[in-house]
Amino acid sequence: MPQQPSVNYLVDPINKVKRRHDRGFYDQATVHQLLDSAALAHVSYVIDGQPFCTPTLFWREETRLYWHGSSASRMLRNLSKGEPACLTVTHFDSIVLARSGFNHSADYRAVMAFGKARLVTDALEKDRALTMMVDRFFPERTAGLRATTRQETKATAVIVMEIEKASAKIRAKGVIDDEEDYALPVYAERLPIRTVIGGPEPCPRIRPGVERPTTLGSYREGRLLEEALLEAHGLTYG
Amino acid sequence: MPQQPSVNYLVDPINKVKRRHDRGFYDQATVHQLLDSAALAHVSYVIDGQPFCTPTLFWREETRLYWHGSSASRMLRNLSKGEPACLTVTHFDSIVLARSGFNHSADYRAVMAFGKARLVTDALEKDRALTMMVDRFFPERTAGLRATTRQETKATAVIVMEIEKASAKIRAKGVIDDEEDYALPVYAERLPIRTVIGGPEPCPRIRPGVERPTTLGSYREGRLLEEALLEAHGLTYG
Repeated sequence: MPQQPSVNYLVDPINKVKRRHDRGFYDQATVHQLLDSAALAHVSYVIDGQPFCTPTLFWREETRLYWHGSSASRMLRNLSKGEPACLTVTHFDSIVLARSGFNHSADYRAVMAFGKARLVTDALEKDRALTMMVDRFFPERTAGLRATTRQETKATAVIVMEIEKASAKIRAKGVIDDEEDYALPVYAERLPIRTVIGGPEPCPRIRPGVERPTTLGSYREGRLLEEALLEAHGLTYG
Repeated sequence: MPQQPSVNYLVDPINKVKRRHDRGFYDQATVHQLLDSAALAHVSYVIDGQPFCTPTLFWREETRLYWHGSSASRMLRNLSKGEPACLTVTHFDSIVLARSGFNHSADYRAVMAFGKARLVTDALEKDRALTMMVDRFFPERTAGLRATTRQETKATAVIVMEIEKASAKIRAKGVIDDEEDYALPVYAERLPIRTVIGGPEPCPRIRPGVERPTTLGSYREGRLLEEALLEAHGLTYG
């Protein structure tokens, strides 16, 4: 995927892609592009030996991942001290119908990032994160909003995780059958899956004369969500 | 969502929706419908205190969840003895741009299911699971395929998890602002997100005269993936 040289994340037994080595990537360019093309991640953490898998909006800044939630939430209370976590992003690209049960598969692009999640407690760092939480998705949006109140800041917890290790795993090859099975009179196909943006639904209570800002131009009906998210990330951080 | 009475999953501190209680559901009808509308789940498990979050195809049968992978994979080796796991499915429905940073949000429907994952070792149970792994998505497909070889069966591990606890969390309300903020001259919208099926891509090596089977009728270009998956599940298990 990446054209330019790119630093690799450390590879060790935690993040090494063990099966299908050909599908594994560790370079930052590949890993970051897949992260920046997504808004939704699943975060795993452990409480008293019980694993939890929580969906959350997230974003990347350099080699750090941020997500947030209510200060009252269970996940955030338990991650605040630097607990090990794993944040995973998956782009689900197709379902593959092969000529044998065994070769049924899926095309996908996924990243697993490992590190220690901690609560952002520094006031300046938190204010900046609360701005980027909006502006990463919607460039320059915070500048046009009222200031966040002290109570709102208090009610929002921000978590940061420095990526210590990460890997991308990519399958992008559609139908692959055993050579002898191609002779069978069996139908086989790749069924593509796309996550797209629908028509924006303006709030019915918008004040007269207030138009959709041009800074939302990345988000157009019918466009792939991942393209819009990657573009918006580039506009804000590029 | 469900119209008929439905059994509830046990609610305890593990699966109780702690924040935004109004968004929590525990009835099997709601939980199962959200599971059966998905092919992709994220599974969390713990190895030596390190949480892992792995994307996988999965399916539900009664109150059991199944997923699979290579017998060589790390996750499966470690789940084989009945390890605690959490399987999460998320339908990401919209991004919400509000009039304040704090009220930016997303609409979503998610299920977290908890239990102990174990390897399916009984030969008959495993054969049946390998059939349903295909037929759950593509009704009656296995009957038209060559038999799975002993080597293929050996190379595939099937994991089953009886759902001990589960909860659904649903936000479906678009833009909600603080009452005084509606007077602000700020644009706000709900940006819908849809995961849809693209045009099927037949394998170029299909034998002459082999047509797309009518049993794949649920999977039509442009249709919501979740609708097709729910319909296929109903055809196979209904």
